[in-house]
Amino acid sequence: MSPLLSDTIVALSTPPGAGALAVVRLSGPAAIGLTAGVFSKKNLASQPGHSLHYGTLRDPETGEVLDEVVVALYHGPRSFTREDVVEISCHGSDYVVRRVLAVLLRQGARLAEAGEFTKRAFLGGALDLAQAEAVADLIAADSALSHRVALNQLRGGFSMELRDLRARLIKFAALLELELDFGEEDVEFAERTGLALLLGEARSVVAGLLRSFELGNVIKNGITTVIAGRPNAGKSTLLNALLREERAIVSATPGTTRDFIEDEVSLDGIRFRFVDTAGLRDHPADEVEAIGVQRTRQRIAQAAQLVYLFDLTELTPAEVAADIAELTRELPNLAVLAVGNKLDLANANQIDAIETHFRTQRLSPAAPLTLLAAAQGRGLDALHEALLAQVRGAGLAQHASATVVTNVRHARALEVAAGYLQAVQVGLGSAVGTELLAADLRHALAALGEITGEISSEDLLTSIFTQFCIGK
Amino acid sequence: MSPLLSDTIVALSTPPGAGALAVVRLSGPAAIGLTAGVFSKKNLASQPGHSLHYGTLRDPETGEVLDEVVVALYHGPRSFTREDVVEISCHGSDYVVRRVLAVLLRQGARLAEAGEFTKRAFLGGALDLAQAEAVADLIAADSALSHRVALNQLRGGFSMELRDLRARLIKFAALLELELDFGEEDVEFAERTGLALLLGEARSVVAGLLRSFELGNVIKNGITTVIAGRPNAGKSTLLNALLREERAIVSATPGTTRDFIEDEVSLDGIRFRFVDTAGLRDHPADEVEAIGVQRTRQRIAQAAQLVYLFDLTELTPAEVAADIAELTRELPNLAVLAVGNKLDLANANQIDAIETHFRTQRLSPAAPLTLLAAAQGRGLDALHEALLAQVRGAGLAQHASATVVTNVRHARALEVAAGYLQAVQVGLGSAVGTELLAADLRHALAALGEITGEISSEDLLTSIFTQFCIGK
Repeated sequence: MSPLLSDTIVALSTPPGAGALAVVRLSGPAAIGLTAGVFSKKNLASQPGHSLHYGTLRDPETGEVLDEVVVALYHGPRSFTREDVVEISCHGSDYVVRRVLAVLLRQGARLAEAGEFTKRAFLGGALDLAQAEAVADLIAADSALSHRVALNQLRGGFSMELRDLRARLIKFAALLELELDFGEEDVEFAERTGLALLLGEARSVVAGLLRSFELGNVIKNGITTVIAGRPNAGKSTLLNALLREERAIVSATPGTTRDFIEDEVSLDGIRFRFVDTAGLRDHPADEVEAIGVQRTRQRIAQAAQLVYLFDLTELTPAEVAADIAELTRELPNLAVLAVGNKLDLANANQIDAIETHFRTQRLSPAAPLTLLAAAQGRGLDALHEALLAQVRGAGLAQHASATVVTNVRHARALEVAAGYLQAVQVGLGSAVGTELLAADLRHALAALGEITGEISSEDLLTSIFTQFCIGK
Repeated sequence: MSPLLSDTIVALSTPPGAGALAVVRLSGPAAIGLTAGVFSKKNLASQPGHSLHYGTLRDPETGEVLDEVVVALYHGPRSFTREDVVEISCHGSDYVVRRVLAVLLRQGARLAEAGEFTKRAFLGGALDLAQAEAVADLIAADSALSHRVALNQLRGGFSMELRDLRARLIKFAALLELELDFGEEDVEFAERTGLALLLGEARSVVAGLLRSFELGNVIKNGITTVIAGRPNAGKSTLLNALLREERAIVSATPGTTRDFIEDEVSLDGIRFRFVDTAGLRDHPADEVEAIGVQRTRQRIAQAAQLVYLFDLTELTPAEVAADIAELTRELPNLAVLAVGNKLDLANANQIDAIETHFRTQRLSPAAPLTLLAAAQGRGLDALHEALLAQVRGAGLAQHASATVVTNVRHARALEVAAGYLQAVQVGLGSAVGTELLAADLRHALAALGEITGEISSEDLLTSIFTQFCIGK
């Protein structure tokens, strides 16, 4: 526990609003004494930790009873922040909470800044920095996958992997530094072959973590899926069906959707961010629409996958194949689903023709075919399955329990570390001096240490914890 | 504890939304065992009550970790409901809460109905009915007075007063019933003089409580203060100044405000409900405005006080006095404040004339004078003081610590009790038979017993507790 943290902070830790309960949390050396000054049980400080105490809270100046509460007592270091912590469960009224906070502030507590409880948990050694950041991620998690990844990070999965790697690199760094101490004597304490092996391994771990960031981003922010196709193929209708609500304006006039309409749906624990687009056509009716189509193409380039939607009754199989080839021409790695709409209006010949085409022609990239009737909500389950199958193919589900980097700050630090690790490896091969090797290795270690906060600055901490809300 | 309550209920007890903490509460015989089934500390049942336990919550089917939590343990009857109670503090994410609730439901808990925790507290004898109702009032309290009254009721102040009265009446009722048992023998166990004295006292207590209901209503719902006056006196400007925001549409065209604009402000812990009205004038410009003026008069009749606003530069003291006399002619008990506006534009003569008039003429009812400039926010403090002084004159502040009836159900029961008590008293004087006296006294006792729930029906309980929200 840092000796600098001599003040005691207080904040509402549950969401604001009316409810049965609200929890006001205090942390700091005076947390217990300060609570005892307004609580009916005056000998609070001599009570055991991890105990609950029912009583009344009074304004010590007027003697007025503020509420009947339960006080939860934690003696540091056996607490979230490692300091003394008190949690007061009062009635869930904004008025009561305001009054309770007011008397505690008058008693000498200070209103906590955003993220200050978690920051103290970090400074007290209860959590490393990556774990502390996971607290915010966990609270924001809204799908099974983002929840699992945040919880894994909070529980130290990611930190452990990094710490293990760092510990092994530090051993070599220490040996290199030792060589430097002996200066002119030309000794080699650090065995170069072992170092080269370790570097190869370290680079591969860091590269793997960096690769997982792409996935982590998807998990945290959803899989962006653009719905594109010719005008009036039913794109807005499909989006509405996927979102199960009237989100997009549906009309029979081609070219209705000019701005992007985006919304999210969680399928099987994976968040999809669907983007409805302006219809693609060769000769747009007006300039506004032309801009819309151009922006659609840009949006597809940024997306994780594309749903190409077409009207089964309008387009021939050759036209569908041509559209897909055209859309994916500059994007060979884009995941594409071909979706034939208006199944209810199509005749047997049309259905047979398209199915045969997709079965017999080798499309590149492979675009699985799904047929549905968006307006009737028919065939949506098959589309859900097809969307999930593509994601699973990309390894998303498998990664869920492994370490996934979801934080931009971590990804940047990993990139820096990767650069220095490469420099060390190259340096080893070209027999540069020990001094340079040692310096580069130090930089790599510093970058890795920043992730878990073994190396940190006040600026970094401030920028991280002010993104939290008050009470965390 | 009722033997019928064999199931265990669960609900989120803190407000929904994102926050550092959320508390999921369980109550019932299986609360602890059921939690132990998903919690890392399996020997939860053998832990002491009023203790806190840190650990992980798992989905027992998949083994997946749901969250790191703190479990608060209460062994019945030392709990809010008198049953075994568990409160799980998890991370304040809707997703986490959903998952936690889901596994607890799968373990065999049932989602609590609205108010069911408090209902169990009542059925378990932890609270009487009036106290249970105060829980909802306390959570809804948004001013110092409503908070104080609800808390006094929760802490049993009101119940004690009723119970004391009821106990004394029951003693007499028992003696009357005893006389009936002896039937023909014409004995008098119940001394009639003592009964008459007690009845007088009881009626006075009940009447006092009924009177306090008027006040209780004001405390709970705010003091309705109508702002009225001639067109363009600055009524909307004054309302805005009082509310410190642009709530009413202000324009220089007389007759802008046709609908009532209402909003609330808490001054010194007392809630005022200000109502801006259409300007009163003798010959309204059109029919819509005429209707507005008519509704203003109705609204004044229902209000607790009236702020009569006039333009200092426009009206003579005689016109002001005439307006007030006219407005209060049919409402002799209405509290009125005379407020002269546009102090910044008035000259010394105008100011002197109105002040002299109010000092020398005896207005009936007495209407204290306040001068201000609403558009500049000048003189508002004086108006606040004048508003509060009138309320204090009405005894509101003094009543705050005494028992105040705020609940319509209680007021109705008190009215019924008052009726029967009067009947008993009248019966005593006219020497009616003991049978009738005893029956009326029983009815009075039943009505009083309904307030605290000593006498209750399942229908009554359902109608009370379903007004609560889930988790209470």
